[in-house]
Amino acid sequence: MNIVYQAKQAKESSIKLAAASSEKKNATLENIAKAIDERQKEIITENKKDLEKARKENLSQALLKRLKVDGSKIDEMVISIRSLIKLKDPVGETIECLELDEGLDLYRVRTPIGVIGVIFESRPDALVQIATLCLKSGNAVILKGGSEALHSNRILSKIIKEETDKVSVGCTQLIETREDVKEILALDNYIDLLIPRGSNKFVKFIQDNSKIPVLGHSDGICHTYVDKDADFNKAVGICFDAKCQYPAVCNAMETLLVHKDVAKKILVALKKLYDHAKVELKGDKATQKIIDVKVATEEDWSAEYNDLILSIKIVKDVDEAISHINKYGSKHSDAIITENEETARKFTSLVDSSSVMWNASTRFADGYRYGKGAEVGISTNKIHARGPVGLEGMMIYKYVLNGKGHVVKDYTGDSAKSFTHKKVNKKW
Amino acid sequence: MNIVYQAKQAKESSIKLAAASSEKKNATLENIAKAIDERQKEIITENKKDLEKARKENLSQALLKRLKVDGSKIDEMVISIRSLIKLKDPVGETIECLELDEGLDLYRVRTPIGVIGVIFESRPDALVQIATLCLKSGNAVILKGGSEALHSNRILSKIIKEETDKVSVGCTQLIETREDVKEILALDNYIDLLIPRGSNKFVKFIQDNSKIPVLGHSDGICHTYVDKDADFNKAVGICFDAKCQYPAVCNAMETLLVHKDVAKKILVALKKLYDHAKVELKGDKATQKIIDVKVATEEDWSAEYNDLILSIKIVKDVDEAISHINKYGSKHSDAIITENEETARKFTSLVDSSSVMWNASTRFADGYRYGKGAEVGISTNKIHARGPVGLEGMMIYKYVLNGKGHVVKDYTGDSAKSFTHKKVNKKW
Repeated sequence: MNIVYQAKQAKESSIKLAAASSEKKNATLENIAKAIDERQKEIITENKKDLEKARKENLSQALLKRLKVDGSKIDEMVISIRSLIKLKDPVGETIECLELDEGLDLYRVRTPIGVIGVIFESRPDALVQIATLCLKSGNAVILKGGSEALHSNRILSKIIKEETDKVSVGCTQLIETREDVKEILALDNYIDLLIPRGSNKFVKFIQDNSKIPVLGHSDGICHTYVDKDADFNKAVGICFDAKCQYPAVCNAMETLLVHKDVAKKILVALKKLYDHAKVELKGDKATQKIIDVKVATEEDWSAEYNDLILSIKIVKDVDEAISHINKYGSKHSDAIITENEETARKFTSLVDSSSVMWNASTRFADGYRYGKGAEVGISTNKIHARGPVGLEGMMIYKYVLNGKGHVVKDYTGDSAKSFTHKKVNKKW
Repeated sequence: MNIVYQAKQAKESSIKLAAASSEKKNATLENIAKAIDERQKEIITENKKDLEKARKENLSQALLKRLKVDGSKIDEMVISIRSLIKLKDPVGETIECLELDEGLDLYRVRTPIGVIGVIFESRPDALVQIATLCLKSGNAVILKGGSEALHSNRILSKIIKEETDKVSVGCTQLIETREDVKEILALDNYIDLLIPRGSNKFVKFIQDNSKIPVLGHSDGICHTYVDKDADFNKAVGICFDAKCQYPAVCNAMETLLVHKDVAKKILVALKKLYDHAKVELKGDKATQKIIDVKVATEEDWSAEYNDLILSIKIVKDVDEAISHINKYGSKHSDAIITENEETARKFTSLVDSSSVMWNASTRFADGYRYGKGAEVGISTNKIHARGPVGLEGMMIYKYVLNGKGHVVKDYTGDSAKSFTHKKVNKKW
């Protein structure tokens, strides 16, 4: 099958899927959960083929770990699908209703976007997660996995497709040709939104090579700014959490900014904790005068370490902190520690990031913690959806205008009728 | 000045502008309105230079009309700015607040997008409209007008810039170099959203040549489907309005679909009205058997006439109508005329257009009629904003997380605290 044909089929199928009932979609999700559970031997057997090939090709341990599907990963998939069933169906919800005139009501109704293209590296569980999210949100999906997970992706997408085809034939498509991923990136006539899942480099490549909108972020350069009016204990606790609680992730702090007036006390205290946690510290000249750190270069300010490394800069005030963050940050998540509300409001207003924290760790920026139920990704885009994105990022709306024969002519000219434009509490 | 420098300045300026108060922005809008009013002689003098050049170059009458700025056009500009002042400031509004845990509140706060690039043809009043919309919504703006309106754009943007620079220096930028528009389309590091204003061909060129998201539509191929259960009078009234009330616009009907069971009665009646209004009719074979029409070819189904021309097709049921619209339409605005609610709901659910009308004219799809206050454009995109778009299309949001020293570590491991995820009625 060729890619364009598959994409076209997904587009056509998306119309019927968008109109599928919640009951139908939830029953299908339950069938998928059951099938994955019942066919786990088969899935694990197929996954072993990929693992063997990966070992032969000396792929990294980290990649092998992400690639591996075992009983507990299958349990997680099943649990995750069942929790998705419990989420409210976003499709068809009336967002608002405006009476334009007597008998002429304008409904704004939530609808799926259409066709979502998902391009992911190595993790077969990502396929299951995203394909079921698409089903719940009424979107057709085109899945393109890495060649290293060929057999795993094939069996999982087959199981899912068998069920979703009963809702709308062709709404789940797996692309597994050898062609370059670039071919998919050019399908802007059929794919409405791309969601890449993988390394920052991978996401950046997708963003740079497609006209299709991309939901995601390529960098997570997060800052914590300790203000002169910071509470000492809060500052120390948050700075430690933001760097050390899980340093490999995008919402971990990479650069610490400290107000000059409190720098000595804070840095000396943090140095002990960071040394104990084996964090490698790099600092600007002013920092070097207070604690023993390596030299931070210009490159450090835009570095995403994803590791136990931290760059430190002493600033003269909140304005310098804000400028630094807007210049070097990645618009992901940045925090201020202060007891001064005015300073906090200045910071939250002027820092141009998707999440801004006041006296809380940047590590909170996450779909689960933000109560999304399911996370589609974290977006640093400036349109559509920003920050941790749940099902709402897969939705758009349409207007339904319900009249009784209304024509525009009656609202023009000398004896034109007026519009009432009155908000009413009606559901479509 | 070079374009990249200007774009960079706009980006930097957008941060401060995003934090400007409603009072400041409204006072500035009033100053702009006053200045345009007071300096109208100067504006008209500059505009005459463009008009003279355009006449020498034999530009079309339609273009000259759009280009011309006279006293009444200036009055309209002033009125339009003053009505913008009355609109609610969307910036800073709390969309929702979720308590994640005691003392840890997550606010979703409406913010400007950042920098909006506006590329427009000939109409100098479009410059004023869009620049003031950007100011109200807290967005910096990069304006690129056509060379035929050089002098008009220069004086108008100068007047606007003098005032907006007092809010945030550099937030209004006029680009008037001779370089190709393509240079602007490549500024995806600085421009967050493009809004093109001009012909369909022009918008399509922009959409096809930029990675920056584009808000707009290149085609308006709108349909009306007259169902077998249609009310005869409603059908006739709406079909006439949708085609004849103002045929040059994007939301006018281009193709009429009629159910076979009612085709004869409807078409005979409409033929009289359309003949009287000098509408050129084209029809498929079945239509040709009922009324005297030209032959509609395959090309007609995807034609946007923007004129008193109509293509007609007889369909066997609502499903065929839906398929035709989804295949040939432009996802703009499409109507069904029926008294059967089940059929209407099927149509509104399955027609994948930004506006779907039931017993109302497609001509209603418009920001003013939809009560938007100000219209940014009509979008046929599938993400961010769809249909007639008001100020909300220039907005995004950020998350503000307000804690009391909260760290993620406390919510992990064996003695993890739970999140409450409780909706609360707090404003940031």
